[in-house]
Amino acid sequence: MSFVRKAIAEMAGYVPGEQPKGVPLVKLNTNENPYPPSPKVFEALREFDASCLRLYSSPASDAVREAAAEVYGMKPEQFLIGNGSDDLLTIALRTFVGEGERLAFAEPSYSLYPVLGELQGAQKRPVPLTENFELPDNAAELAGDAKLFLFARPNAPTGNPTPLPVVEKLCREFAGVVWIDEAYADFSGESCLSFVNRFPNVVVSRTLSKSYSLAGLRLGIACAPGALIQEMLKVKDSYNVDRLAQTLAVAALRDQAYMKENCRRICETRDWLAGKLVSLGCKVLPSATNFLFVQPKHPAPELFAGLRGKGYLVRYFALPRIDQYLRITIGTREDMEGFLAAFQELDQ
Amino acid sequence: MSFVRKAIAEMAGYVPGEQPKGVPLVKLNTNENPYPPSPKVFEALREFDASCLRLYSSPASDAVREAAAEVYGMKPEQFLIGNGSDDLLTIALRTFVGEGERLAFAEPSYSLYPVLGELQGAQKRPVPLTENFELPDNAAELAGDAKLFLFARPNAPTGNPTPLPVVEKLCREFAGVVWIDEAYADFSGESCLSFVNRFPNVVVSRTLSKSYSLAGLRLGIACAPGALIQEMLKVKDSYNVDRLAQTLAVAALRDQAYMKENCRRICETRDWLAGKLVSLGCKVLPSATNFLFVQPKHPAPELFAGLRGKGYLVRYFALPRIDQYLRITIGTREDMEGFLAAFQELDQ
Repeated sequence: MSFVRKAIAEMAGYVPGEQPKGVPLVKLNTNENPYPPSPKVFEALREFDASCLRLYSSPASDAVREAAAEVYGMKPEQFLIGNGSDDLLTIALRTFVGEGERLAFAEPSYSLYPVLGELQGAQKRPVPLTENFELPDNAAELAGDAKLFLFARPNAPTGNPTPLPVVEKLCREFAGVVWIDEAYADFSGESCLSFVNRFPNVVVSRTLSKSYSLAGLRLGIACAPGALIQEMLKVKDSYNVDRLAQTLAVAALRDQAYMKENCRRICETRDWLAGKLVSLGCKVLPSATNFLFVQPKHPAPELFAGLRGKGYLVRYFALPRIDQYLRITIGTREDMEGFLAAFQELDQ
Repeated sequence: MSFVRKAIAEMAGYVPGEQPKGVPLVKLNTNENPYPPSPKVFEALREFDASCLRLYSSPASDAVREAAAEVYGMKPEQFLIGNGSDDLLTIALRTFVGEGERLAFAEPSYSLYPVLGELQGAQKRPVPLTENFELPDNAAELAGDAKLFLFARPNAPTGNPTPLPVVEKLCREFAGVVWIDEAYADFSGESCLSFVNRFPNVVVSRTLSKSYSLAGLRLGIACAPGALIQEMLKVKDSYNVDRLAQTLAVAALRDQAYMKENCRRICETRDWLAGKLVSLGCKVLPSATNFLFVQPKHPAPELFAGLRGKGYLVRYFALPRIDQYLRITIGTREDMEGFLAAFQELDQ
């Protein structure tokens, strides 16, 4: 296709987890939350006056920034609000990494990171995680002269968090911007947010997709020193978050108790399932998220197909180091009891 | 700021039209529609079940594609749905124009075009419009080896449409992709959509922001040959349009009669106001949009400030060739009667 940039024509594009249509499958493949959003979100939706949709939304999502500032104990001008975390990550690449410059990212981690590099025409510098899927102690050295370092804490798809001192060392030693993707942090109870006030080069991102049960609303939050936010604001689309998303996001953020109780329930179900799977002889990685990364006794692709046949859709990655694992999103206790029964029959 | 790409650090960023807060101003500055969205949109919102927001949205906005295909008489796979037209334009730059390559765009036109070029690190190749603010006959020649040519038909902020044969000549002669921004086409009754089936290099974009009264929902539609859509799909964020926007967009698209009646009312008010302003001695450019581009007798910045003082916010561009004009969005007949009274007092 001669009209298209070479980098685009040659790439395959990112393939998101399947959104099954028509087939009745229990969806345990994209780390969605099994519980509905907060009742406050329902209420805000009910009270929303569609007349106001004729007017553009707040360019910087002011009300969301203010709610985020309250929740996280920061200033509103330290926040960039995005149309999902993916929007924020795209903005990061376009702000910090020029064509031909280097993007560092943890591997294995969120499989979008290398794709974002390809889209920007960046050179990819994968930094291998340790045997335990943690950042190595010399991560900054391995990243070299990269302009941006992307990693997730807790990590996806493995589920574990790199110890905080190792992250802190990276922030101190790396010359570019360190982007800490905390999509799953609400399930872990630990955060790197305080680093934002201690280092000039640290961005921490959150999402309402997982812990707030709002994957379909598209709302991501980046927290960073004001100077970095100012530059990223230049790059984002003028009105990147719509009025409904802004309104419902504020309602969700203001109901911390509901979100936390759902996280507690999910972690409880997760730990129960992990115990069961271990007793069946599986290898289960320690998880601080709403999913488990599991090595079954039989080959993972076989289990994946078998589970699908029994109505359970999980995620399989045909990638080095993780192609013997399945990633299983934690649903309700009932979902997971059904899942366990199906799994048991297949992985004897 | 050493962390940031040079192109970003050195640019000012796009400044969208003011969204006034707290002050009671009649907003005639960003070409919003004075009428509420279709009753079908209100109904779809009322019936929307917030529970489903826990799940990701359709990556390609399938239901919107299908509705658009019906409305425009095309195939669903000829559509790319965006988080507003701005999202689509950003995707276009990232798909077609590499860093250091050339972006052609009409000038004066939508002031975002050159900013998008700067963000991508592209070289800018402005193509001056004729004295009547139309594309010149030799536009393809002037654009040279640019990869992408952006222009609006009808044009913003001038309001006039370049004659179709001139556009057709550009599509035939230009070696890169021609992007025809039809944000205001519903007010003109004319379209270049059929070019999409005749040329391999033509994209036509629409938005729900103007004629459908949904600026705050963020929904843009690009129509192009399937091969171009395939490449742009690789570049867009995986879930770039949220579930609410997809649902309400379908409802809006399915109510063509309501949209068309609003366009008719707005054009009627526009033509009435144009006549009045001409009789006051202003120069008023012919408009096929929901705004007028007007040269008052007194200096435009003076009028802009005076109107603001009287509660009317219009748009002024301190740019070559158009710095003696005001762009006035058409509101309700009542809005514009008030506006005319204020204007008359100021521009005697």
